[in-house]
Amino acid sequence: MHLPLTASAGEIAAAVARVRNAGLTLSTCGVVYMTTEPEVRRAFAYAKEAGLRFLVGAPDEALLPAAEKAVKETGISLAIHNHGPTDRRYPSPESIYTLIANMDRRMGLCIDCGHTQRLGLDPAAQVERYFDRVFDLHVKDVSAADAEGTTVEIGRGVIDIPRLLGTLTRLAYAGTLHIEFEKDENDPLAGVAESAGYLRGVLAAA
Amino acid sequence: MHLPLTASAGEIAAAVARVRNAGLTLSTCGVVYMTTEPEVRRAFAYAKEAGLRFLVGAPDEALLPAAEKAVKETGISLAIHNHGPTDRRYPSPESIYTLIANMDRRMGLCIDCGHTQRLGLDPAAQVERYFDRVFDLHVKDVSAADAEGTTVEIGRGVIDIPRLLGTLTRLAYAGTLHIEFEKDENDPLAGVAESAGYLRGVLAAA
Repeated sequence: MHLPLTASAGEIAAAVARVRNAGLTLSTCGVVYMTTEPEVRRAFAYAKEAGLRFLVGAPDEALLPAAEKAVKETGISLAIHNHGPTDRRYPSPESIYTLIANMDRRMGLCIDCGHTQRLGLDPAAQVERYFDRVFDLHVKDVSAADAEGTTVEIGRGVIDIPRLLGTLTRLAYAGTLHIEFEKDENDPLAGVAESAGYLRGVLAAA
Repeated sequence: MHLPLTASAGEIAAAVARVRNAGLTLSTCGVVYMTTEPEVRRAFAYAKEAGLRFLVGAPDEALLPAAEKAVKETGISLAIHNHGPTDRRYPSPESIYTLIANMDRRMGLCIDCGHTQRLGLDPAAQVERYFDRVFDLHVKDVSAADAEGTTVEIGRGVIDIPRLLGTLTRLAYAGTLHIEFEKDENDPLAGVAESAGYLRGVLAAA
């Protein structure tokens, strides 16, 4: 589904060109897991090759200093992604923020709205609390505000999307939002389209 | 695409069952054009066979008394549809309203938001002006507020959808809204999904 991290420079360049030729802006990649220092170096080299401004990742906690070093060397920011109730390292935005608060300011968060809501936390409140380090959001909706929740079309679930977008607007958020849609993986177009329409409708009415 | 008006009672019953079994509510049909009295009788017989509460139609102006008679006989309302700049009979909501204002109160309008906007008229204002006879809306968006406008995904065009839905909410509209999507006729699902999402987003944020 994604371009492998082992892709050659030529493969990366071809993929980037394909995205651009489709009229899309390639903004980031991920979630990139990193369990060794070579994997940290490979992730940032890959992001640099693709011309990315930041990457969404999940380095092991012991590798955060190595990741910070890579951020400084490459100028590429790292948005660490929280994965909810079953993620022992980074379930919540707070679990990430406390580890990086004193690191380089390009070490930050990609708040996954679905996994955050599945912890019983309101994504809007979490974004506001950790706002100075929020670089990206995985926007989605989930069927329940607990570990049983699964992705549904945005607007059909339990997340208060108008509040989330209202908070981002009020705080003049300048980062990115990416729709992440794990439902209907073999034919996700209609669900993604409905989700995009919902977000645009909320913004238009607000 | 649609069940023909010449369908037998058995064919109509099978189609209605198919819709219901898919979990959908079959609310109306149309646009049904009527150019002779037998066609008026056939349209209402068809609607009655399908168990419809009202039908969306466009009888010739001279047939409006026959249509009113059929409404009284069957108890099925008629929502007359305006078709915009190229429609010589019923371009605007006003062109219909003036003809039916003194007829049975079950003679009314299906305001097509796209064709109305293509006349340079704001659908929200038109709905409010003729509200007592608005039974249904064809909700869509169009690329331009003139005869050149064509259907686009709701939210991508020029119609002020938040104002339209806000007006309907404020007036406690109790009729129906149907998405009509003429774009991508061979593969309309994504566009319809985006449109539905947009409408739900606007309503959620309002």
